[in-house]
Amino acid sequence: MNDITKQLLSLISDFDPETGFTGAFNIREDTGCAGRQNSRNIEISSKSDKPGIDIRVKPGTKGETVYIPACVTHSKVDDLVYNDFYIGAGADVVVVAGCGVHIDGEESSQHNGIHRFYLEPGARVLYREKHIGTGEGSGQRIINPQTYVELQEGSYLEMDTTQIKGVDSTQRLTTGVVGLRARLVVREKLMTHGEQYAETNFEVDLNGEDSGADLISRSVAKGRSKQLFRSRINGNVRCTGHSACDAIIMDEGTVSAIPELTANDLDAALIHEAAIGKIAGEQLTKLMTLGLTAEEAEAKIIEGFLK
Amino acid sequence: MNDITKQLLSLISDFDPETGFTGAFNIREDTGCAGRQNSRNIEISSKSDKPGIDIRVKPGTKGETVYIPACVTHSKVDDLVYNDFYIGAGADVVVVAGCGVHIDGEESSQHNGIHRFYLEPGARVLYREKHIGTGEGSGQRIINPQTYVELQEGSYLEMDTTQIKGVDSTQRLTTGVVGLRARLVVREKLMTHGEQYAETNFEVDLNGEDSGADLISRSVAKGRSKQLFRSRINGNVRCTGHSACDAIIMDEGTVSAIPELTANDLDAALIHEAAIGKIAGEQLTKLMTLGLTAEEAEAKIIEGFLK
Repeated sequence: MNDITKQLLSLISDFDPETGFTGAFNIREDTGCAGRQNSRNIEISSKSDKPGIDIRVKPGTKGETVYIPACVTHSKVDDLVYNDFYIGAGADVVVVAGCGVHIDGEESSQHNGIHRFYLEPGARVLYREKHIGTGEGSGQRIINPQTYVELQEGSYLEMDTTQIKGVDSTQRLTTGVVGLRARLVVREKLMTHGEQYAETNFEVDLNGEDSGADLISRSVAKGRSKQLFRSRINGNVRCTGHSACDAIIMDEGTVSAIPELTANDLDAALIHEAAIGKIAGEQLTKLMTLGLTAEEAEAKIIEGFLK
Repeated sequence: MNDITKQLLSLISDFDPETGFTGAFNIREDTGCAGRQNSRNIEISSKSDKPGIDIRVKPGTKGETVYIPACVTHSKVDDLVYNDFYIGAGADVVVVAGCGVHIDGEESSQHNGIHRFYLEPGARVLYREKHIGTGEGSGQRIINPQTYVELQEGSYLEMDTTQIKGVDSTQRLTTGVVGLRARLVVREKLMTHGEQYAETNFEVDLNGEDSGADLISRSVAKGRSKQLFRSRINGNVRCTGHSACDAIIMDEGTVSAIPELTANDLDAALIHEAAIGKIAGEQLTKLMTLGLTAEEAEAKIIEGFLK
């Protein structure tokens, strides 16, 4: 594994350069594999028909974490990977993904990670992913994650996804099919700068009785960056769906929010809220009377907002 | 004016069959004119290039109401009309439009009314329209209203639009361009039954500093009816925009809500909420313990919701 990968891993996945990862992991570096380890309960194997891996978590596995970060360490990389997760019945695990793209030249690099999650009855997953761009090169850092989640009876997946800085362009698609008494929670935090573009698409079908979805996006658009947020929830049975998009705009940033709720069943209860605006003047003034400069006050407010 | 027109007028515009309208009015019957009157301050004239009328309200006119209802009284009518309102500076008037379609046969009828409002600085308009379908015929009652509103400095238009029953299909488009310190308010109430279809589209550009828009839709979808609600607010300057869609579904009714907020300016503050669901069980139970039947309780709740 090269040094840039080590740096990126610390940024996206709490990687310790001394001790490495504990438990199962697979490290993708550029388009290859820079390390893999199975645990007793979690088996990672390469796909034979296309780039990517299968991650199989045995039924009943508890308290384990599997790391599958992907790093792009130079310009001119075009990476596409398919990672499929099979989570056995009653398992309760943490999946740490995340992607870093480091650009050293004028040419762009991109990582397209397509993750599919199949949760058996009663399984629980906390899925964490962080996306970041680094390096001094002028090429574009592009990360387009796609996540497909299929939740069987009583299962639960929570996705915490964060893109804080350095990613020039991202198109994010998260699709969920939620079964009987299952629940999908997505928490997204996005910050864009400069000329960056970020697009989020959530599409959730609530197909099982008493299923639920909670899709929460918080974002900050600085500089001349642009963000587009789309969220589609279809309530096809007795279910509850909630979607919220809160965005702070700064400088000349622009944000569009287009949620879509469709109740196809009498017992579907769906709610959405969105709010877009700049930081309230009173908030800034209050922090500045406490001794912060305008910039420090702004940074403090954004930190709290994205926490 | 025929008897069906008289009945429709009472339903859509508080028409008194004995005394008629007071002040300026124009009654459209099928594709013709069944009566017109000007007032000292409000002049109605036929368009020379296409079907429809121009309504000119003198600057400073206060407290007057102008009625321009349209009635379709039998099957096989395909009516298209362009009505333009020029509201002089500082005027403060009420416009009562509305449309009734009565079907006596197997063939459908439709009314397509395209209304454009040009408000000069400081003008105020309360625009009321009710849409209804009547008659025993099996043909479709179709009403497609389009409203275009252009608001100059400091002007205000409030649109109260109601479609309570009998309209089989409606596509409603309301577009607004809101200038300096001007404000557009739209309150929509919709109820659909049977196999009816209703589609609402709001598109508002907040172009003037300190302009505002408030778009509120409340709807009930019964039977196997379908509703689609779209609302687009673009905040292009310092402005405030709010959009809300609350829908009650009953039986096998379905509702989609697709609001869209875009902040193109740092000082644009935009908010949206939507909620779709059935009548809460507790609300029904409460009214039923007070002695109402389930049907009466339901009717009471809907009445309150759409008031």
